[in-house]
Amino acid sequence: MPPDSTASRARLLEAAFEEFAQYGLAGARVDRIAEAAQANKRLIYVYYGNKEQLFDAVRAQRVGALFDAVPFTTADLPGFAGALFDHLLASPKLLRLSTWRQLERADSPAAEITQFRDKIEAIARAQKHGIITADLEPADLLILLLGMVTSWFHVTHAVLDLATEDGWSPQSLQQHRAALTTAVRRLVAPAPHPERYSRYSTDIEGT
Amino acid sequence: MPPDSTASRARLLEAAFEEFAQYGLAGARVDRIAEAAQANKRLIYVYYGNKEQLFDAVRAQRVGALFDAVPFTTADLPGFAGALFDHLLASPKLLRLSTWRQLERADSPAAEITQFRDKIEAIARAQKHGIITADLEPADLLILLLGMVTSWFHVTHAVLDLATEDGWSPQSLQQHRAALTTAVRRLVAPAPHPERYSRYSTDIEGT
Repeated sequence: MPPDSTASRARLLEAAFEEFAQYGLAGARVDRIAEAAQANKRLIYVYYGNKEQLFDAVRAQRVGALFDAVPFTTADLPGFAGALFDHLLASPKLLRLSTWRQLERADSPAAEITQFRDKIEAIARAQKHGIITADLEPADLLILLLGMVTSWFHVTHAVLDLATEDGWSPQSLQQHRAALTTAVRRLVAPAPHPERYSRYSTDIEGT
Repeated sequence: MPPDSTASRARLLEAAFEEFAQYGLAGARVDRIAEAAQANKRLIYVYYGNKEQLFDAVRAQRVGALFDAVPFTTADLPGFAGALFDHLLASPKLLRLSTWRQLERADSPAAEITQFRDKIEAIARAQKHGIITADLEPADLLILLLGMVTSWFHVTHAVLDLATEDGWSPQSLQQHRAALTTAVRRLVAPAPHPERYSRYSTDIEGT
């Protein structure tokens, strides 16, 4: 491999992220990626195989960075949801990438399945310890939580603006974020034990 | 207009729905739509203007049909969420269409904004009457609800299968649906008034 392999790989992944986020998998052009990365198009095939595998590599890198930046903890699921919301808000292209992927690349890479399984198992353990409601399946809890985190990003700006005149103003965002963490707390709190619920709420408020 | 105008319009909308759901707006081919509809391609431009406007027409038709089939009622938001879940489950192409739209067609048609505003205002009235929690903004409640309804459709089959061996089996679907209605009930119930919550729950269980 040439000495600048690491640098050219990094430039290719960065350019590919921009291209895929904008145009999706089918709409992306390998020529444009190579040009933006100031790299030879052939290198894409050498390093990654084909366009689909480049897409998977970009997504794995970005999702990995996401979960490094937003650690999952069952001790504070409302906090996790809020942090995930912040991260997606700061990188809307990542959500676009995931949305294209949902439409155009249905296979789940093994790494993603592992990430998901680890979270489900952690929730199951938290349920056994009574800090999360046990009346819903761990996977359902996780999926509902993720659906709520991304919900604001799935409505159009015009629709969201109805909510608060300007749905993406700093004050509005604080309102949406607070609604999210409240909703997650209601979802996961171990009802119907009001006392434990209060204790749980107090604990997580304090962290 | 030719005498078969209504029939050819209907065939074009049907063919366009299939094409857009599969390939999205940029990826759709007007030639393929005309061929599948056994219609002259020129008719698309005569009837709808251009590909973007055809996309909007298809979406307006399908979303209109959706909300005709699933009436919105603040008296039973968990039931509304469950019925919406059923409808999307029965027509996965509709969700694909909406997802492409989110990526490729950011403008909100006026009709959609009106539909959304009507629901927000209905929720605000229900909050005044005390049958829905008033501690969250109406738009946030609606957006969180919609995010939960679509949450299972945004994860891949492989990931969902982790939950229940076979995430889309009839039994699993019943489980997901029950988790959804439970979650919506927790979200909208007018806490912190446990008595009213019980009464509300009983009312909506009984409908």
